[in-house]
Amino acid sequence: MKDKIKIPESAIRRLSLYFHHLASLKELGVETISSREIATVYGLAPFQVRKDLSYFGAFGRRGRGYNVAKLMDKLGAILGLDRSWNICLVGAGNIGLAMYRYQDFKQRGFNIVAVFDSDPKKAGQTLKPGMAIQSMDQIEQTVNQKMIQIGIIAVPPQAAQAAVDKLAAAGVKAILFFPSSQILIPKGIALRRVNLGLDLEFLSYALTNN
Amino acid sequence: MKDKIKIPESAIRRLSLYFHHLASLKELGVETISSREIATVYGLAPFQVRKDLSYFGAFGRRGRGYNVAKLMDKLGAILGLDRSWNICLVGAGNIGLAMYRYQDFKQRGFNIVAVFDSDPKKAGQTLKPGMAIQSMDQIEQTVNQKMIQIGIIAVPPQAAQAAVDKLAAAGVKAILFFPSSQILIPKGIALRRVNLGLDLEFLSYALTNN
Repeated sequence: MKDKIKIPESAIRRLSLYFHHLASLKELGVETISSREIATVYGLAPFQVRKDLSYFGAFGRRGRGYNVAKLMDKLGAILGLDRSWNICLVGAGNIGLAMYRYQDFKQRGFNIVAVFDSDPKKAGQTLKPGMAIQSMDQIEQTVNQKMIQIGIIAVPPQAAQAAVDKLAAAGVKAILFFPSSQILIPKGIALRRVNLGLDLEFLSYALTNN
Repeated sequence: MKDKIKIPESAIRRLSLYFHHLASLKELGVETISSREIATVYGLAPFQVRKDLSYFGAFGRRGRGYNVAKLMDKLGAILGLDRSWNICLVGAGNIGLAMYRYQDFKQRGFNIVAVFDSDPKKAGQTLKPGMAIQSMDQIEQTVNQKMIQIGIIAVPPQAAQAAVDKLAAAGVKAILFFPSSQILIPKGIALRRVNLGLDLEFLSYALTNN
């Protein structure tokens, strides 16, 4: 794998989409697919699909298309989807609990194995047998015990930086981040923002300017 | 306003960020700001900030910076944030109800004024005084009565296309879309996808390849 080339985030996102499309084709028994066919599903140019795949070496042969199962396996390995990940949730509010209850993630190998909240009324509550909401000062110990690699932060903006710092200090290397606040990202942490407010504002822009 | 130029989505997203940064500066009593200062906050080149703003005409003067209040008002008008929007939610599951309960949106002028669900056990339940969950066949009438412009779809993948089509038929022009399924977007509809699974997969990629 070429690891010195900076691969655009948009390409990674498309690889995820290709992976899921291939998974559904495999279920339907489809054996080969062309870059043109993949491209059509997502309204892309076939060149774009080939370019996205080329970041990770040569797949398939010109004119023969790709083997669905093999390409899916390779993309899965690139995306780290051939294994499972242990996740902790910081913030047991509405968004946090929605993430916790969303079964799709588990099917994809993303397991929420710990939940933390700073509210003493919440800490101690049990979400299901064996899954108690823990207080924030238990983050370090639990992250280490349960070998947690990814954190989901769904706390109010004013608590966001402390949550990031606690996870980083405990050794978590990747964070999915819901608060809208600006933060300093500790070195070596991959942080992905979800900003639902910005998504709504994009729609308000579209309605205002169409 | 130039309306023939196609403005990149990424620029619109940055304008939203600038708007919120200006709002917090205004609260702090700051009167002027340079493109360089805005750029620093977001790790951008000052040129990028000037370019994003230039899509909508000239703001401020070279060397003097921007007037915070004026620039904020202009960005607010561009983004449609100088008014409020009526929103309906389709799908009263975990993600849907998290969106419903998220108070930040209301403060920004995004009001969820109706909630629909196909589950007859949910339809009829009351979320708060005056806000009953309605059945799907009430979408058209309610969208018209309450002058709803934006729909949030948080239904299972297999119900997603029907929900899009119902909202479009009722006259909704903008949709925030949570299901991971592929869909046909009716003409004239602005649709913005939120795919939390892809965001987690981006982190799994980052962990696998760093």
